[in-house]
Amino acid sequence: MLSGGQSIAAVAEGRQTVVDIVETQLARFEQRDHAVKAWAHLDPDLALRQAGTVRGPLAGLTVGVKDVLATVDMPTQCNSPIFEGHWTNEDAACVSALRAAGAVILGKTATTEFAFQAPGPTRNPYDPTRTPGGSSQGSAAAVADGQVHVALTTQTGGSTVRPASYCGVYGYKPPFGTIGVEGLRLLAPALDTIGLHGATLDDVATVASLLEDRARLTEPPASVRFVKLMSPNIDQVEAAMIDLVDTTMGRLATAGATMRDLVLPEIFHAADDCHRLIMAAGMARSFRDLWRTDRARLSPSISTYIELGMTADDQALAEAWQIRARALATLQALTEPGEILVTPAALGEATVGLESTGNAAMHRLWTLLHVGTISLPVGTGPSGLPLGVQLIDPMGWGDHLFPAAAFAVKALDLPARAVVAGA
Amino acid sequence: MLSGGQSIAAVAEGRQTVVDIVETQLARFEQRDHAVKAWAHLDPDLALRQAGTVRGPLAGLTVGVKDVLATVDMPTQCNSPIFEGHWTNEDAACVSALRAAGAVILGKTATTEFAFQAPGPTRNPYDPTRTPGGSSQGSAAAVADGQVHVALTTQTGGSTVRPASYCGVYGYKPPFGTIGVEGLRLLAPALDTIGLHGATLDDVATVASLLEDRARLTEPPASVRFVKLMSPNIDQVEAAMIDLVDTTMGRLATAGATMRDLVLPEIFHAADDCHRLIMAAGMARSFRDLWRTDRARLSPSISTYIELGMTADDQALAEAWQIRARALATLQALTEPGEILVTPAALGEATVGLESTGNAAMHRLWTLLHVGTISLPVGTGPSGLPLGVQLIDPMGWGDHLFPAAAFAVKALDLPARAVVAGA
Repeated sequence: MLSGGQSIAAVAEGRQTVVDIVETQLARFEQRDHAVKAWAHLDPDLALRQAGTVRGPLAGLTVGVKDVLATVDMPTQCNSPIFEGHWTNEDAACVSALRAAGAVILGKTATTEFAFQAPGPTRNPYDPTRTPGGSSQGSAAAVADGQVHVALTTQTGGSTVRPASYCGVYGYKPPFGTIGVEGLRLLAPALDTIGLHGATLDDVATVASLLEDRARLTEPPASVRFVKLMSPNIDQVEAAMIDLVDTTMGRLATAGATMRDLVLPEIFHAADDCHRLIMAAGMARSFRDLWRTDRARLSPSISTYIELGMTADDQALAEAWQIRARALATLQALTEPGEILVTPAALGEATVGLESTGNAAMHRLWTLLHVGTISLPVGTGPSGLPLGVQLIDPMGWGDHLFPAAAFAVKALDLPARAVVAGA
Repeated sequence: MLSGGQSIAAVAEGRQTVVDIVETQLARFEQRDHAVKAWAHLDPDLALRQAGTVRGPLAGLTVGVKDVLATVDMPTQCNSPIFEGHWTNEDAACVSALRAAGAVILGKTATTEFAFQAPGPTRNPYDPTRTPGGSSQGSAAAVADGQVHVALTTQTGGSTVRPASYCGVYGYKPPFGTIGVEGLRLLAPALDTIGLHGATLDDVATVASLLEDRARLTEPPASVRFVKLMSPNIDQVEAAMIDLVDTTMGRLATAGATMRDLVLPEIFHAADDCHRLIMAAGMARSFRDLWRTDRARLSPSISTYIELGMTADDQALAEAWQIRARALATLQALTEPGEILVTPAALGEATVGLESTGNAAMHRLWTLLHVGTISLPVGTGPSGLPLGVQLIDPMGWGDHLFPAAAFAVKALDLPARAVVAGA
């Protein structure tokens, strides 16, 4: 199966049509959907009709769209009974941009309820008894399973990076603010970040360059300065993941990277705790109308957070914002421009059961601090499931993250596309 | 009249008692209060009782406390009929810290209603027909008039820097998050910043070092890299202020500073516009209970903003946060660590009339971006009223702001204390 970049090239060079490529993807979908359940909506006829008409630099690329992003030709249901059968009049801005560039929107990928906790139907492609992670669960599973090249995601806690790690795909949470949120059903306005899952780093970079309107380059530099981070909650990380990060750091050093260790001070633990209140306050705002009119159709987990946000002490919220600012300033003081932090991309392998999509302990701090991170599918754990390593650029909008990831892909000899499970 | 530092030294060396110093300040207060009206509450007996008992490294320093900060021994009324006669059970954290260090809390300085727009009674010490600025109007006027050494302030838009410029005192808006907000009546939790007015830079640095719990040094370096900023709204700045900034830059260069000009790109104009929505959303949260129970006793100006925040489109709010993030990242990309930005500290001299406390066009962007700024009382305008120049450290919690300000104080030969009006 071709990667997104290979498919675009095949179309550009006349070796394949977009219809050929979409047919291949749909065949994979038909074969595997019963086991993976990655899609909230996928209409093969609509996908083929798009395939027959698209033009542009991304013609040949297939894209899944997380079902919290508006699409004019497919329902946007947010995995909530409140939005069942809901259609919008406009595409989200990121969807429009992809269509205008010639990508085929294959379908809507399954999400947890409103991209919060209550799970959707999706299973981990590597083991149907395990979660694919969340909230962007259909995006990660569909990409990992070879049903689509890339998928749009969101992250307010760990919703892009964790499923990327659990499903063995590349996951990109951009710096906050680089991909416009027009047409996103919001969870927390000061945190919500649209991101990407892809089977190759190049495919992620191609789409990121379009949506962020800046060149995200994947030419590996001669060296990278990596900083191994003893981040908050590192005591919760499983042994196999700790070993993987150590092994990875060693291989990066062998390839010419420089290394240092950094233990983050106490303020980062405090900031990690603050994520909850800032997110809840945002949710209280975003869901105030639904909570008033339709509370019975909200899950207990989301209602609990909305109510936490509604009733939270304003002083505590202000202090949370203060601690966040102190942590960000401290992070920038503790690192040099160009340094890239390295942490686990999840606590360990995907957990058993579908009820929980896993723990955001490796992610929420970086979402709160608005910095960009990439999860690389580096290894596997004791049960043979994927494990990811997360790279973080501590400098806001720095240009160092993709080159550092490209260096790692080369140094670690990561496969040109993530391994497709169950093929 | 002695500066704060001189008073502390006089006490430490046994040349004066704290009572002597407080009596001098009270004499000035008695002489001038009818004209300046800087205080929401000042009980001379209480001030003298404190003077008789204080001990600590700041014994000899007198402090005014903006009347949105809690004080256990004085009312905290926020210039609102809703809080008339209101007493708290605890001091704000910053007030406690000052008391513990031996400072005398002289009284509560007048504020606009809840530190928003509706003015208090204070007049500009240089011209009673003009505003002292706001919202920290009593703080600036009391310090400028020699009634107190330093005063606590807040800033959510331009509430510290503008009155500093209008009244000819040093004004410090710290990086967001460095001075804890416990005991502050909040306006917008993601923006509210406690700051300082002082008659000398050293006095401001002394108190900032205590409240921020880090050494704010005022030893001037051999050189500073200044960046003259064509910031948003520069077209609104009066000619005398433009001239003052130019002259100031020339004198700083003569003293050995390096200079460059920077024109900020369009994203900063957009970010400047976003301040309004982010502040209004915060106000909607902070005032939701009062607005429900006591709307009739809120001013029209604050009610309008609360309602704007309540009804504002969530998508627009999310986009505002995104634009803010893009502007901050762009600012850090356009500047080198150690560079200090220079802008006007206000559009011009204090405006005539007390109804408006002036325009936040030179301030709100920096509050939104959470960076630290200092206003220096550098010159006077065509009517003989003070004009300030603002220094900004674009790097979060950088240590460069106070040294740069000290360099400017020396290079410009600014008086050891601001000129006291009407003496």
